[in-house]
Amino acid sequence: MRVEQLWSNARLATLRADLPGLGVVEDALVAMRDGEIVYAGPRGDAPAFDAAIAHNCDGRWITPGLIDCHTHLIHAGNRAREFELRLEGASYEAIVRAGGGIVSTMQATRAASREALVAEALPRLDAMLAEGVTTIEIKSGYGLSLPDERKMLEAARALGEARPVGIAATFLGAHALPPEFAGDADGYVETVCSEMIPAIAGLADAVDAFCEGIGFSADQVRRVFETARAHDLPVKLHAEQLSNLHGAALAAEYGALSADHLEHLDQAGVEAMARAGTAAVLLPGAFYFTRETRLPPIDALRAAGVPIAVATDCNPGTSPLTSPLLAMNMAATLFRLTVEECIAGMTREAARALGRLDTIGTLEAGKRCDLAIWDISEPAALVYRMGFNPLHARIWGGQA
Amino acid sequence: MRVEQLWSNARLATLRADLPGLGVVEDALVAMRDGEIVYAGPRGDAPAFDAAIAHNCDGRWITPGLIDCHTHLIHAGNRAREFELRLEGASYEAIVRAGGGIVSTMQATRAASREALVAEALPRLDAMLAEGVTTIEIKSGYGLSLPDERKMLEAARALGEARPVGIAATFLGAHALPPEFAGDADGYVETVCSEMIPAIAGLADAVDAFCEGIGFSADQVRRVFETARAHDLPVKLHAEQLSNLHGAALAAEYGALSADHLEHLDQAGVEAMARAGTAAVLLPGAFYFTRETRLPPIDALRAAGVPIAVATDCNPGTSPLTSPLLAMNMAATLFRLTVEECIAGMTREAARALGRLDTIGTLEAGKRCDLAIWDISEPAALVYRMGFNPLHARIWGGQA
Ligand SMILES: [Zn+2]
Ligand SMILES: [Zn+2]
Repeated sequence: MRVEQLWSNARLATLRADLPGLGVVEDALVAMRDGEIVYAGPRGDAPAFDAAIAHNCDGRWITPGLIDCHTHLIHAGNRAREFELRLEGASYEAIVRAGGGIVSTMQATRAASREALVAEALPRLDAMLAEGVTTIEIKSGYGLSLPDERKMLEAARALGEARPVGIAATFLGAHALPPEFAGDADGYVETVCSEMIPAIAGLADAVDAFCEGIGFSADQVRRVFETARAHDLPVKLHAEQLSNLHGAALAAEYGALSADHLEHLDQAGVEAMARAGTAAVLLPGAFYFTRETRLPPIDALRAAGVPIAVATDCNPGTSPLTSPLLAMNMAATLFRLTVEECIAGMTREAARALGRLDTIGTLEAGKRCDLAIWDISEPAALVYRMGFNPLHARIWGGQA
Repeated sequence: MRVEQLWSNARLATLRADLPGLGVVEDALVAMRDGEIVYAGPRGDAPAFDAAIAHNCDGRWITPGLIDCHTHLIHAGNRAREFELRLEGASYEAIVRAGGGIVSTMQATRAASREALVAEALPRLDAMLAEGVTTIEIKSGYGLSLPDERKMLEAARALGEARPVGIAATFLGAHALPPEFAGDADGYVETVCSEMIPAIAGLADAVDAFCEGIGFSADQVRRVFETARAHDLPVKLHAEQLSNLHGAALAAEYGALSADHLEHLDQAGVEAMARAGTAAVLLPGAFYFTRETRLPPIDALRAAGVPIAVATDCNPGTSPLTSPLLAMNMAATLFRLTVEECIAGMTREAARALGRLDTIGTLEAGKRCDLAIWDISEPAALVYRMGFNPLHARIWGGQA
């Protein structure tokens, strides 16, 4: 069989759902044609390949390329000064006076051109790619006006042109209330629904919202979800991070791809997610950075069979994290996810949380050839170390 | 004035003790001759330099090269499998049966040649250097026999030949009880004192011990310290990590460079350290990885004026951390150290904890030209981000 590239002498963590655990295959081959995997399995079962380019992996491990399914990668400025002031004991008011808070990110993002947003995000994206990321979700939500939200989504698309990486762009207009709608959250939601969603429907892959006391109410989120449904856009939700507004159950009612954060999720929410097949996206970087102490109900999610994904939540205010490997370590250390759950959470389950399990997330024939090749003795080493990057090579759609 | 190299258009965090805070100097120059800083300060106050090589820093920040003053960088094998088993709920006995625990690291380290130890440590060292480390302390303590402890110290020295970095080698023979001395800790300490310390005195810069219920008693540590003193070797101590054996006060009695960990340190220990000028080396990576909840007495250390350093504690069992930047973030996030304390803790105070403040740790004329040049908007960005490396260049003794 003629193929374009062949990786031999590899150990695979295929993440195939029909194999136990990580779906390990020793002494394996991966073959690629037209950017897709045509074979990933034992050498002994493989057809004879005639490869244009052959790579000897020298026994290295290959996993699916990592997938970061929840980020706010595009934003202008940083909140380092706010971080510093907090450590010095500054009050929230003092921080806002000093130009901190989400409004400061909104102002900087509004003031930046699309090109400037791309330029600022590229070093963060490159840090992700250096650790094996092949698909990344990027949300809008710091523009909070139609032109600025559109600019953010276009910047997300432009990142996918600038680098060999898959992009999932999510419209998060209902992230925070912009100052011009102060005291009129319903009015802003009306604008999101009547003006923004119709205008960005062709640019975004999904619609997200922040359901929280400091965000939007369940009723307001329902209006956003109704509009998304009318435009055939799948939904997801920032839910139950700081309190329980029953956002996860609402998301499940709309067949959401995922409900994310979930520290305050209750049993009814767990069950609703399980019934709908809505994935739980856990964000241990935000848990760590904000010094949260309440854990998501991991055992209940497991017991109900809710798919569990892990993501960085890369954002300037509550999770300035650009390391998917560290996100996995934090999921293990802080949330006690197993090694298998952590790795599945940034591959197969993250693909599921993006609605893309048919094309990415596992090493199987027919999927895009997205590979992360690692200098590790065993898969657990990816989760165990902190601040160490053992990536040997990253392949996206067959390209290095 | 003729100099070899000149860095201009820089912003300095000099860490000079006679300046407030981080000792910031805007629009600054750094000049180097014979591997030493001959000037680091405002352009306006500088003599006219005639430089063989001139670098325009384009407004970048320069800090002293980072100093990691507590690591177990040299070891064979890893404990990723043990980490995985713990997450799956395995008991300590099951882990030991599966080949885990410190004895597994000792066995692997004994079995490895000096060259193999160097080769295994190099990727970890390179990760440190990539984040701006210019001096690193490395302990023995997994050999636990004279030939194997010597081999570790020689490997530490060899790392300093393999890479442009300053090495501080510490003898930690009293780290754990080797199996051949089971039930006879006093006999092992006798061997450490009568055989090992005299033999390694020329190889080691300092002597360390692990004062703990699962390590060595205060009486045993005292014998180690007496022997070190007789060989003119400064001492330091792993103290008060899991319980309070009053190790820090003992260390202070011997004028120790530092007492490290300190979660269970009491007020008498704080005061003894302050009187002796013994530095507190905080190790937030171990605190995080072992899910410790008891904090070191930071406020008491501050109030008493104890110098506070921060280090990675890079080791396979309790802190597989190779990122000094992440150590700073953890010191801020978990221990609430300020940005200034974190950066001082990995520069000036770490130099003090190694007894090398006369030659490294600040940007001042007469010190070794160890620079970290960063692509950051402000020093706080070094501490604020997680898993992101903004290093632009690293200079050790004037060499890139
Ligand atoms: Zn988010
Ligand atoms: Zn240690």
